[in-house]
Amino acid sequence: MSEITMKAGKARSASAVLNRLSTNQKNDALQLMADSLRNHKDDIIAANQEDLERGRAQGTSPSLLDRLALNPQRIEAIAEGLEQIIMLPDPVGDVLDSFERPNGLQITKVRVPLGVIGIIYEARPNVTVDAAGLCLKAGNAVVLRGGSSALSSNRKIVEVLHSALSASPLPADAIQLIESADRSSVDEMLKLNGMLDVIIPRGGQSLIRNVVENATVPVIETGAGICHTYVDETAEPAMAEAIAVNAKVQRPSVCNSMETLLVNTRFAAAHLEHLADQLKNSGVEIRGCTETVKLIPWAVPAEEQDFATEYNDYILNIKLVDTLDEAMDHISRFSTKHSECIVTENTAIAERFLQEVDAAAVYHNASTRFTDGFEFGFGAEIGISTQKLHARGPMGLPALTSTKYIIHGNGQIRG
Amino acid sequence: MSEITMKAGKARSASAVLNRLSTNQKNDALQLMADSLRNHKDDIIAANQEDLERGRAQGTSPSLLDRLALNPQRIEAIAEGLEQIIMLPDPVGDVLDSFERPNGLQITKVRVPLGVIGIIYEARPNVTVDAAGLCLKAGNAVVLRGGSSALSSNRKIVEVLHSALSASPLPADAIQLIESADRSSVDEMLKLNGMLDVIIPRGGQSLIRNVVENATVPVIETGAGICHTYVDETAEPAMAEAIAVNAKVQRPSVCNSMETLLVNTRFAAAHLEHLADQLKNSGVEIRGCTETVKLIPWAVPAEEQDFATEYNDYILNIKLVDTLDEAMDHISRFSTKHSECIVTENTAIAERFLQEVDAAAVYHNASTRFTDGFEFGFGAEIGISTQKLHARGPMGLPALTSTKYIIHGNGQIRG
Repeated sequence: MSEITMKAGKARSASAVLNRLSTNQKNDALQLMADSLRNHKDDIIAANQEDLERGRAQGTSPSLLDRLALNPQRIEAIAEGLEQIIMLPDPVGDVLDSFERPNGLQITKVRVPLGVIGIIYEARPNVTVDAAGLCLKAGNAVVLRGGSSALSSNRKIVEVLHSALSASPLPADAIQLIESADRSSVDEMLKLNGMLDVIIPRGGQSLIRNVVENATVPVIETGAGICHTYVDETAEPAMAEAIAVNAKVQRPSVCNSMETLLVNTRFAAAHLEHLADQLKNSGVEIRGCTETVKLIPWAVPAEEQDFATEYNDYILNIKLVDTLDEAMDHISRFSTKHSECIVTENTAIAERFLQEVDAAAVYHNASTRFTDGFEFGFGAEIGISTQKLHARGPMGLPALTSTKYIIHGNGQIRG
Repeated sequence: MSEITMKAGKARSASAVLNRLSTNQKNDALQLMADSLRNHKDDIIAANQEDLERGRAQGTSPSLLDRLALNPQRIEAIAEGLEQIIMLPDPVGDVLDSFERPNGLQITKVRVPLGVIGIIYEARPNVTVDAAGLCLKAGNAVVLRGGSSALSSNRKIVEVLHSALSASPLPADAIQLIESADRSSVDEMLKLNGMLDVIIPRGGQSLIRNVVENATVPVIETGAGICHTYVDETAEPAMAEAIAVNAKVQRPSVCNSMETLLVNTRFAAAHLEHLADQLKNSGVEIRGCTETVKLIPWAVPAEEQDFATEYNDYILNIKLVDTLDEAMDHISRFSTKHSECIVTENTAIAERFLQEVDAAAVYHNASTRFTDGFEFGFGAEIGISTQKLHARGPMGLPALTSTKYIIHGNGQIRG
């Protein structure tokens, strides 16, 4: 039996126990996990050093090494993350619907755990704890497959979490770490129907593509964000400028940052030069359509492919459009359906945009950077779904549950 | 460009129009479709005759020919099915959540159409109309790929529906029929990410397996049903007998019928003989475990594989168990997580079963045959989901929708 089959089997058995635990029992286990991480932070940092040294020897980039690195402050933040999960309401057992049929059947629809959740991610050791904490709180066992460059850190973290769980009613088997660095372990995991109930990929585009294209287990797709902001003719210039600059530069590396600014030609004639200067002052390279370059001679001419690119960087496409429809056509063609924004003082135009643009989150007069579990008030999130099934947008604990119909009868049979 | 790519593209364009239509506009279109089916029933029956003659010439089984056959009564029933869909509430636009954040952002979660739904099914021409009607009512375009043995019927039906839509604001392109009988057209459809938002397979196990194993488009898995009934020691004998007989014989060919009866040994000692006689009188062949065969000498000894078989026929496995845990272990091992039942007068035992058994529908003292959109009061259903993501159990119109966050701001940017 392979490592992944064996560990998924253990997770499946643990999930049957988890399903029966109370909210207090789960919260107590999460607190033990947080305490244990704090108590063993030196061990974890030592294991993390092994990963960092290996990474440096292999010429890993400084930004990837930074994502991988742990220090006392980061471990404290991870432990506090678990304590935030304790504060979140437990979705399991919530009654979503309840009704009686004419034949007397009492039908109740309740939230239940999904069962066993697979998480495939890259070299961020904090995901190991965040994902485990969220899955456990929603009553699920979790099978973690992190990037091999973080293996020493992840192995130590999971060892610490297991020791914490051994003092709780929650079975240690509820958290499984796949240690094989072999790519075939991922391939096998993607096809474990019946053992895994869902796989959530967290990471870059190529990781997500691989999971979506090869999984037979249901997947929740997350993360891809080619987000647009459309500045309408009637936009208030200072507001448009503040929103555009914020959506681009407040944190360019994340999925809800803006990649393309669409500007109404009449607004552009009066205000684009000033707006572009503000972006330039923030360090943004502008790639403009032909009309943009006429107004902003220092802009780089945009290629068609630029509009289909998620830069996650200080680069922004600007395209001028004559109408709302032209803006929406462009969005419909290039959007990844994550977050889209219109800046306008015209309510009718705003309402058309909000209704017709197909995305997880559509904004009127606010930065796309708000698409986030914390900003929406959901607490911690497991990711931002960019698909339409099951969950769309920031996913809090309810996204990690399914439902079940419980039917009470007194002998009803079907006629 | 292939047929499927071209037609999915037309459906995608139509879905943008559908998204904007009112409930009345959609209902008017559904009524025109029903009227048109009635007005053209002779043409449809003539086209259906072509399919039937081809089927007979190819030696198609009588039961498959019966599923394929249309007559005036069946066409009237199909038209009435559309009229029932008109009566269902439109889920699109429903506000599921609405809240204000401390920074003043107004966040509303609303139901929106999924977009374009692919349906892959077998030789039942009624599915062509039912599926189109349900998808359109929920604001979705639909790409239909029916069995090639029903192609003449489906082509005529879709022609009739298109002519009806041409007199409505609903674009005719919202209903697309894939006519290629080539298996590769299905393979291509399964990978049309970005064009199709979801694929729902409707049919037998091999059709569903092929879709689940090969699709990269998200799938809603439906239909597999190895359903169990557990008769506890304290079950009321007459009730247990009525429920068991009903769950097996009221309509053995469907997914919510029972395949295995688990009987507590103490109940069996007193009542199994009588219960088995009732099943035998209804024409049921019994395959029993060793202990069952001791009590019912005429039962066929069951093989291990029998417990993993969805007979959809007048065949029933019977297994004796000593405890609730033994019954739940068996269910956990062989269940397809569709519908599971316990018959008992012991409330504590019932509650354990209802909480711990993992299935779309769990019953106390009622037949599993009730797992059905009509029986649950949802009106028509697109299928019964046996997966845990997005929708579980009978799927009414809300299962054909997604959600969207609409955010109203007044210039908020992220700090």
